[in-house]
Amino acid sequence: MDNFVFHNPVKILFGKGQIASIGKEIPKGSRVLFAFGGGSIKANGVHAQVVAALNTAGLAFVEFAGIEPNPRFETLMTAVDLARAEKLDFILAVGGGSVVDGCKFIAAAISYDGDCWDIPARRARINTTIPMGAVLTLPATGSEMNAFSVISREATGEKLGWGHPGVMPRFSVLDPETTFSLPARQVGNGIVDAFVHVLEQYLTFPANAPLQDRLAESVLSTLVEIAPQAMEIPADYQARANLMWCATMALNGLIGQGVPQDWTTHMIGHELTALTGIDHARTLAAVWPGVVAVKREAKRDKLAQYAARVWGLNDGTEDSRIDRAIAATRAFFQSVGVPSGLAGYDITAEMAAKVPQRLSERGGLPLGEKGDIDAATVQHILDAA
Amino acid sequence: MDNFVFHNPVKILFGKGQIASIGKEIPKGSRVLFAFGGGSIKANGVHAQVVAALNTAGLAFVEFAGIEPNPRFETLMTAVDLARAEKLDFILAVGGGSVVDGCKFIAAAISYDGDCWDIPARRARINTTIPMGAVLTLPATGSEMNAFSVISREATGEKLGWGHPGVMPRFSVLDPETTFSLPARQVGNGIVDAFVHVLEQYLTFPANAPLQDRLAESVLSTLVEIAPQAMEIPADYQARANLMWCATMALNGLIGQGVPQDWTTHMIGHELTALTGIDHARTLAAVWPGVVAVKREAKRDKLAQYAARVWGLNDGTEDSRIDRAIAATRAFFQSVGVPSGLAGYDITAEMAAKVPQRLSERGGLPLGEKGDIDAATVQHILDAA
Repeated sequence: MDNFVFHNPVKILFGKGQIASIGKEIPKGSRVLFAFGGGSIKANGVHAQVVAALNTAGLAFVEFAGIEPNPRFETLMTAVDLARAEKLDFILAVGGGSVVDGCKFIAAAISYDGDCWDIPARRARINTTIPMGAVLTLPATGSEMNAFSVISREATGEKLGWGHPGVMPRFSVLDPETTFSLPARQVGNGIVDAFVHVLEQYLTFPANAPLQDRLAESVLSTLVEIAPQAMEIPADYQARANLMWCATMALNGLIGQGVPQDWTTHMIGHELTALTGIDHARTLAAVWPGVVAVKREAKRDKLAQYAARVWGLNDGTEDSRIDRAIAATRAFFQSVGVPSGLAGYDITAEMAAKVPQRLSERGGLPLGEKGDIDAATVQHILDAA
Repeated sequence: MDNFVFHNPVKILFGKGQIASIGKEIPKGSRVLFAFGGGSIKANGVHAQVVAALNTAGLAFVEFAGIEPNPRFETLMTAVDLARAEKLDFILAVGGGSVVDGCKFIAAAISYDGDCWDIPARRARINTTIPMGAVLTLPATGSEMNAFSVISREATGEKLGWGHPGVMPRFSVLDPETTFSLPARQVGNGIVDAFVHVLEQYLTFPANAPLQDRLAESVLSTLVEIAPQAMEIPADYQARANLMWCATMALNGLIGQGVPQDWTTHMIGHELTALTGIDHARTLAAVWPGVVAVKREAKRDKLAQYAARVWGLNDGTEDSRIDRAIAATRAFFQSVGVPSGLAGYDITAEMAAKVPQRLSERGGLPLGEKGDIDAATVQHILDAA
């Protein structure tokens, strides 16, 4: 196990009815930017619950609607201008990971003096952030309990990750009932997103960290166990509660402490989304088979452990067990409606060639737990996928 | 899964060399109470490392030595008087769980206006606490990452638990090298303490919380796996690192969120320590067989799950699997040098009778995840143990 520093002060309010508590979590006298997405929260009653909670607490607020999936710099800057003009000093993100990620950017940008695109693009120094909280309505990204954010820029077709401790939510409400009205496609995407978040922190090489390994396997096994119910019965409170807690635990930092990580699937996936608009989780399921095909030998020990512990594969040769674990993973993605591999997408050779080029230009290479995935390897991964 | 609120802002600095970082974690200009136990930290070099870190940061500090195992109110009030007289405003606990627990009391007592024994005895309202940090040298209690504390009073023979969010350490250093010089008895006690912390949050009834179950099983399985090396090779860094992280994860609140808990073994154990002076962990290993004997039916489903997942027992009747899991647990305690059951201790019937009486007088009954362990059941548990 390597040295690590773990510090996650996000307060989680979990369960039905918890939206009513947000008034107690936001400092009295705050002027709140209540930010959300496309309006589904109006249809499912979450918007009304939030308004009621803010009004009960006597908090002044201004609404900002329209933060899109893969939240765009251009949209978010409109919110930043609004917040500056209205002197808002608390941000409440209500929605999925894109709304939370977008609000993290707003929280850092409001008092940033300079070109705010430098925040994701140049990891600009951030001195002050506005406090924020979240009401999560889509279990997937883990953004509700971490410091990370991914922002896209329409003008340049870029999609960039960044992070800062100051943008961790002060609190996040996780009410499983808010997920009942989600389209199946988003639930499936969320399951794959959470699952791959764990794989990126787990499928590397053994590092003398048996507890971290088992914590990761716990999230993976639980996702496999609860996915059918969470997909089939939208109002199954317990299935959705377990999905929600798994997705948060998948990326709140805990399972990845002191161990090597490999975010190759995500980094390639982000480029594909930026180039083609394919849903984030779909790019993960598409790229992952390529990563384990090309890096199979480097990841052999952990792939064998994954086969045994998550998929119960203990018979046959090690290679056969690894093959079956990879096949089981792809079948799992398919079972929640997410195609695995790139075959089903219309990715031209020209488009695929842009991925390593863009990663390279931005200094994003090499990737991998051993830093050995260069531009040529990225190309091999895309070919294998 | 039940609703829950989870908020653990303790910053963990894990690994060798991390003591040197404490100067950056304590606010500049603080006047520090550097509190420790019996002096083993002078023999193993931890004291010198802490002094160097405080001096490098230019922090003024006053030492207080002599916080004993099962830290005593009488001793701690001496430290409170010192801190008040010297106007100290940060507390640094350096030692095991007893030192950390004792410092939590000091942190709450310094600005408490009234009889400080009311803090544990009457759950007195605490308005202000002094910030504290910890350097842990004994993996066991989990106190380094939670809000709880257990304090004893010599004059009355009481041992009482209490807690307050304000006494959570701002940071805790977990350097496995500080454990190399521990006596085997303390390492074994620590393993049993951590193991039983998990059992108290796990061995109840199924509550539709498969992730919490697996997280608990992860800590249990890892403790079983690493205990032999951690016991046999004091300077095995990786074994001690894994033990240290397991002990912290066993009681930082995470695995017990949204699930029933049963702290019966601890509550009876505290009374036995108060009455007889038996080491805390030894009382747990002594009492636990009685709890699972008397509450076997209520805990049947989880006992069977525990047998299968932690001990790999899948053959034979359910009763046989449960019997073997209990026997394996007792053998595990014995393997780290901690006797299981009360047979080896000189507990008279008269002394045993005092346990339910004392619990009852303090309003500590009923116990158990279903609140059905009354005075008579406590007596049965002690008889069965």
